[in-house]
Amino acid sequence: MTSCFAHIPAIPFEGPESRNPLAFRWYDKDRVVLGRRMEDQLRFAVCYWHSFVWGGGDPFGGSTFERAWFDGAAPLALAEQKAEAAFDFFSRLGAPYYCFHDRDVAPEGRTPKESHANFRHMVEKLAAHQTRTGMKLLWGTANLFSHRRFMAGAATNPDPAIFAMAAAQVRDAMDATLELGGENYVLWGGREGYETLLNTDMARELDQLGRFLSMAVEYKHRIGFKGLILIEPKPREPTKHQYDFDTATVYGFLKRYGLENEVKVNIEANHATLAGHSFEHEIATAQALGIFGSIDMNRGDAQLGWDTDQFPNNIPETALALYHIFKHGGFTSGGLNFDAKVRRQSIAPEDLFHAHIGGMDVCARALLIAERMIKDGSLQAEVSARYAGWEGELGQGILGGHLDLAALADRVLAEDRDVLPVSGRQECYENLLNRYF
Amino acid sequence: MTSCFAHIPAIPFEGPESRNPLAFRWYDKDRVVLGRRMEDQLRFAVCYWHSFVWGGGDPFGGSTFERAWFDGAAPLALAEQKAEAAFDFFSRLGAPYYCFHDRDVAPEGRTPKESHANFRHMVEKLAAHQTRTGMKLLWGTANLFSHRRFMAGAATNPDPAIFAMAAAQVRDAMDATLELGGENYVLWGGREGYETLLNTDMARELDQLGRFLSMAVEYKHRIGFKGLILIEPKPREPTKHQYDFDTATVYGFLKRYGLENEVKVNIEANHATLAGHSFEHEIATAQALGIFGSIDMNRGDAQLGWDTDQFPNNIPETALALYHIFKHGGFTSGGLNFDAKVRRQSIAPEDLFHAHIGGMDVCARALLIAERMIKDGSLQAEVSARYAGWEGELGQGILGGHLDLAALADRVLAEDRDVLPVSGRQECYENLLNRYF
Amino acid sequence: MTSCFAHIPAIPFEGPESRNPLAFRWYDKDRVVLGRRMEDQLRFAVCYWHSFVWGGGDPFGGSTFERAWFDGAAPLALAEQKAEAAFDFFSRLGAPYYCFHDRDVAPEGRTPKESHANFRHMVEKLAAHQTRTGMKLLWGTANLFSHRRFMAGAATNPDPAIFAMAAAQVRDAMDATLELGGENYVLWGGREGYETLLNTDMARELDQLGRFLSMAVEYKHRIGFKGLILIEPKPREPTKHQYDFDTATVYGFLKRYGLENEVKVNIEANHATLAGHSFEHEIATAQALGIFGSIDMNRGDAQLGWDTDQFPNNIPETALALYHIFKHGGFTSGGLNFDAKVRRQSIAPEDLFHAHIGGMDVCARALLIAERMIKDGSLQAEVSARYAGWEGELGQGILGGHLDLAALADRVLAEDRDVLPVSGRQECYENLLNRYF
Amino acid sequence: MTSCFAHIPAIPFEGPESRNPLAFRWYDKDRVVLGRRMEDQLRFAVCYWHSFVWGGGDPFGGSTFERAWFDGAAPLALAEQKAEAAFDFFSRLGAPYYCFHDRDVAPEGRTPKESHANFRHMVEKLAAHQTRTGMKLLWGTANLFSHRRFMAGAATNPDPAIFAMAAAQVRDAMDATLELGGENYVLWGGREGYETLLNTDMARELDQLGRFLSMAVEYKHRIGFKGLILIEPKPREPTKHQYDFDTATVYGFLKRYGLENEVKVNIEANHATLAGHSFEHEIATAQALGIFGSIDMNRGDAQLGWDTDQFPNNIPETALALYHIFKHGGFTSGGLNFDAKVRRQSIAPEDLFHAHIGGMDVCARALLIAERMIKDGSLQAEVSARYAGWEGELGQGILGGHLDLAALADRVLAEDRDVLPVSGRQECYENLLNRYF
Repeated sequence: MTSCFAHIPAIPFEGPESRNPLAFRWYDKDRVVLGRRMEDQLRFAVCYWHSFVWGGGDPFGGSTFERAWFDGAAPLALAEQKAEAAFDFFSRLGAPYYCFHDRDVAPEGRTPKESHANFRHMVEKLAAHQTRTGMKLLWGTANLFSHRRFMAGAATNPDPAIFAMAAAQVRDAMDATLELGGENYVLWGGREGYETLLNTDMARELDQLGRFLSMAVEYKHRIGFKGLILIEPKPREPTKHQYDFDTATVYGFLKRYGLENEVKVNIEANHATLAGHSFEHEIATAQALGIFGSIDMNRGDAQLGWDTDQFPNNIPETALALYHIFKHGGFTSGGLNFDAKVRRQSIAPEDLFHAHIGGMDVCARALLIAERMIKDGSLQAEVSARYAGWEGELGQGILGGHLDLAALADRVLAEDRDVLPVSGRQECYENLLNRYF
Repeated sequence: MTSCFAHIPAIPFEGPESRNPLAFRWYDKDRVVLGRRMEDQLRFAVCYWHSFVWGGGDPFGGSTFERAWFDGAAPLALAEQKAEAAFDFFSRLGAPYYCFHDRDVAPEGRTPKESHANFRHMVEKLAAHQTRTGMKLLWGTANLFSHRRFMAGAATNPDPAIFAMAAAQVRDAMDATLELGGENYVLWGGREGYETLLNTDMARELDQLGRFLSMAVEYKHRIGFKGLILIEPKPREPTKHQYDFDTATVYGFLKRYGLENEVKVNIEANHATLAGHSFEHEIATAQALGIFGSIDMNRGDAQLGWDTDQFPNNIPETALALYHIFKHGGFTSGGLNFDAKVRRQSIAPEDLFHAHIGGMDVCARALLIAERMIKDGSLQAEVSARYAGWEGELGQGILGGHLDLAALADRVLAEDRDVLPVSGRQECYENLLNRYF
Repeated sequence: MTSCFAHIPAIPFEGPESRNPLAFRWYDKDRVVLGRRMEDQLRFAVCYWHSFVWGGGDPFGGSTFERAWFDGAAPLALAEQKAEAAFDFFSRLGAPYYCFHDRDVAPEGRTPKESHANFRHMVEKLAAHQTRTGMKLLWGTANLFSHRRFMAGAATNPDPAIFAMAAAQVRDAMDATLELGGENYVLWGGREGYETLLNTDMARELDQLGRFLSMAVEYKHRIGFKGLILIEPKPREPTKHQYDFDTATVYGFLKRYGLENEVKVNIEANHATLAGHSFEHEIATAQALGIFGSIDMNRGDAQLGWDTDQFPNNIPETALALYHIFKHGGFTSGGLNFDAKVRRQSIAPEDLFHAHIGGMDVCARALLIAERMIKDGSLQAEVSARYAGWEGELGQGILGGHLDLAALADRVLAEDRDVLPVSGRQECYENLLNRYF
Repeated sequence: MTSCFAHIPAIPFEGPESRNPLAFRWYDKDRVVLGRRMEDQLRFAVCYWHSFVWGGGDPFGGSTFERAWFDGAAPLALAEQKAEAAFDFFSRLGAPYYCFHDRDVAPEGRTPKESHANFRHMVEKLAAHQTRTGMKLLWGTANLFSHRRFMAGAATNPDPAIFAMAAAQVRDAMDATLELGGENYVLWGGREGYETLLNTDMARELDQLGRFLSMAVEYKHRIGFKGLILIEPKPREPTKHQYDFDTATVYGFLKRYGLENEVKVNIEANHATLAGHSFEHEIATAQALGIFGSIDMNRGDAQLGWDTDQFPNNIPETALALYHIFKHGGFTSGGLNFDAKVRRQSIAPEDLFHAHIGGMDVCARALLIAERMIKDGSLQAEVSARYAGWEGELGQGILGGHLDLAALADRVLAEDRDVLPVSGRQECYENLLNRYF
């Protein structure tokens, strides 16, 4: 088989003035930004599913892509061809990581044993590809949402036998992630929720989900997996309501089941906006609650009410998200995954490169902007000054518990004066921000 | 002063066939439903603010209502007139409860002491009105969002002196609530959040808010207030992002600050939909998490992206919400407040009656439907049957912790068979539901 | 082949007290409502695509339904089986009409000629089924959105050769609709719009679309088709922006190309809400502009931002829509199509019956309510009274053109008095409405 | 009275490296861009209402700004102070234009005559200020939405006497616009629509609105006003549904009443997004339909469902909008108005400067980007190439009417081959776009 990417050379860095559409203009992996190489800061990952499994279908139309590995051979042979194509793409692109679901890399078999065998077969192939190319695994995960058996949930299914089927997949996927040197393990509960409350016992389902997650955490420790376990919040789609609605909801769930020190979140830009938040809101919330882990850097469309998983293209918005991440030191085991797909009409193999190159360049520019913001420090200084009063006697007395409601009320009546507000200066700070671009 | 409601007699119950627009057709307060009088089940409250304070203005236009108590006298005299009008309305309408903010009933003074004195003056008047009319207070609260000093938050203000101003108001409001026999105390954090993350330290503000709520809980116990403390979630408006986004978020917040056994939620239909949820979702979530307290029964408009606080008018939707409440036994100290306002064009005094009569009749019909659903029991039986597997050996083994991830995975491989899904039957249940209407 | 519906008897009307889930409780086809039999007023149609073609897939998961006609034989043989199943379903259900796209009933061939031959083959089968069962065709249409060749539009494609391919399908579909006695012909432009303005010439595409529609109108007259040509507005999905955004937009488009007397609209409830309107808004707009034709009676989900095509279940909302239709006399050649699908988890063949029975019963109840509203006439009388001033000298002078801007301004200054507004009485009318339910 | 802006010097252009928050970094009014001075291309206007009339109130809180001209004197004296402050601000800022509503500049009187006299008094003051400062009027308009008499509409009011009141205001406002050298006259129908269809006769109201607009057009010609009459579309807020929903709807309305050659649109970014469109969509639509006039450059907030009227801050989004405007030659009599307001917490007088400086700088940068895009021409060349087929024999045959439906269908069957689609290249074009930033 000749690769469909054979005509595309490894993507070089050529600098901002380049007009070569198959070159990076900003992503210079060895450039040191905020003390580390760009590659080590951004930790880019390419996702297996959208780029190598999805055929371009949508609810109103069939496949538009014609990939050599889509049909014409036995499923496992096609899976091998797909893996070759994927690693060929990864190598030419030059991103250091990839991510996968179990069912992306190996076909579902007719029985659990066959599925297990298929997956084990392909994990060995992936290991060989990793060794050959130097690619690393940012995270693995199990697809517990595509098969019809999971239509009413995996962990939250009304049938415990389906819960068990899900558990079997997760064990395999966690084992594989450990073997392949994966740095994190992700759970996305696309079907963990409800379509209608009319047939749903929410309290019961939450307990099922809590038990499932506890099992995964126990298993992680048992096999010695050192990476993070990450939950990926999403409010809805495919399910009407998903229990992992957003970061704040996941935090409450983790607290409820005593898992807040074991599990963190993988935040997706598009999921944030579907939940009615900005991307940076979700990042800031996770940081404030101590559960920030990793990100999926793919946007939605402001006019569309569903998950479009588009590559990032707005530099200021991306810069603001990265500013929040890097002012707190950046990633540990997490990274920046493109859970992104090319548009359905982008049917040429080159389009996969345009999309990733564009996304990586946008993030690289955004990182450079975030660096300027952090080094300059003006914005942070303004914020600190705004809260300076809380470092004083009154603020510390309140937070330290020395002053209670009655004490404060007495004090207000004793002083008997109004307190005047000061400007919030939003426009001034927005202008300041534009100075970094 | 002659009451502007003088021409309207006390609203009678006249039954479904009545064509009198100033009569109840369904709200028959003494009719026993699910074991209690309708009045005792529904626990209707009229809100002071929208009905007696709001002038009909919106962001594009000024007041449209012309109430006798709006101007023409000194603030405190107007407040007395307003209280008379309000209790006159309450009495003619026949709802058993009302609710208020401190600033609804008494004008802000030039200094904290004057504000305190104004409020104390009016609390005495309210007490007298209650005694005279038999009206009861469902809950009291403090308005910590209208005055410009709170524009950047009350508890979450960057200035601790404003936090203290808020504390003083809450002490007064809690004291008053206790004195007036209020059955709950509510906190709605309309300005507790942020307009822009650019000037915000979220972690710090969450701690401030946690401290504020802890103070209120401490004070409640100190003064011997036995009612519930309730937080009212809302995602946004007036503030871009509010920390009490929705019920699940509030739950996580309460867990973070160790308050989950002290505080419950007051859920508003309109706030639920603004947060991307159905009303019954928020109710079911609160019940699943053990923090259901009370409701504000006012809907939004499906085409509008802001808080319209309209009176309920859709009987099936209202019935579904009440079904969720009453299948779990209904209210304890909570109730059903109309945080609702007539439309800006409904400028006649009669319109206040039409709105409340319509809202109460819709709820009464909905309660009767909920009663049929609960007594029939078909829907609940279907749900229980759906989860029956979880009562078996496998389900109990999972939930009880006897089976871990590896044990389940081994079992799946040993059995080596697929598990087939069954129909979710949503349409069948929706038809069943329509049978009760 | 034994029908998968063989165990289900023809659905009887059993009246409101029936507890038989496979019976109508309200749809009594011979009952006379507003002067015509229910069947003749509501003109129900079952759609071929969602009920017999769709497999239950969504963007995150594969098929869940297992229909005998989905695979296991040659495409044309499967198409014949599907037609048998569909007409078996239609007959048992008892709806008088059905609707189809060309590609629903016959498979796409390898070449245009083969596609044409397949379609002709199946049209003969459909004709025979119609004769055998008495079913009628409400409307036919061509699927110009599923095949990858139409990914960038059919009429609005950048390639005129694809425009021609679309024209060929439309000729066949119009011919077939005429032959099968179809009462209308529908065009839904799911891909007529753009994904990104970056690659789009909107003015050019609008002209292409105008030309395409003009061709269809010319062809209609040429072949002597007497039914209506209908455009189905939808704002987006699958395409980011669709040119037939909503009824008002379609009106402007028709006016631009001189087609406003030739073409009307087929309005879908779910499309209305996606466009930011209520269903009754779209109906009222079409009536005000003189282009009301037919409806698709399928709702969305208030929390979801995409087209869910659910069966109607809210009686008051449905009644309000039918009130608008029937106060203007109801349908002429249009009807009430269920462009609706069962939920993905509703995998049992019975679920198709539950869904349609429920939908038809909701509409039947809604029609009875609309009848009461129309016969009572109170609401219409209130509206007429509200505008009474426009029947007077001033109103007629303005509308008749006798008074111009200066004349009015002079008159206002001469009279020099304010004009007082009166109550809009919205709550009162909402209460009135609930009286009919 | 000392100006509250006295401490702020005229805003200089200091170039991109300046760190002076009260200087332009990009807006260099004399720099020639695309053949004209920046000032003449961008034609910036400051709005009177948000900047000098609005007090910072929102639906949950009162005024936060404390402007000297808000109270403390007689209404007309305050209006004079406000005008002085406004022109003082305009002059220091250096924008060439301003815009106003009649009621922004002069108080409503107790009677129509008094209102007229107040307005005439202030128009003379404005004329003097214009002469003194060199400021120009981009457009004038009448406020037909704030006063309670207009709560149910102005032109679409059920009472023709209120229509007449509106006509009187429009005559005065058009006269004043002519006298003050205004370059356009705008109508925004904030109350022209409905709150509930229950009390609305839409067909009648549309005719009223058509008559009103026709009157304004007649009057324009009568008085010799040479500027454009512009309608400003908005889908909702304050009214639930507004008849001027979006550009496509306005086009249909103009066609209906024969006004499509007389009236154009003033498009607001925030209104576009509330209608479910992008700003550039509305611009492109207006251009395609031949009714593009002017813009209001103020954005919404992606998480909020109401009109926030924020100053623009996203450079790529602004550049894309300006690219659409300037690739068609830019403005004629229209311009770029900031119908924008500072945030409620931005209470310092400096904040008004920060906001306008930031907005003007964002637009200036965006214009420079648009210039690069236009001069480079790559994007336009790609679009032209994409449609090249339409210049060929088949394309011209279709558009020219030589080929009809049957001819095309025959041709397709005769050729009997499939037509293959080509890539839409969206990601490639998005990357190309980022090259200009």
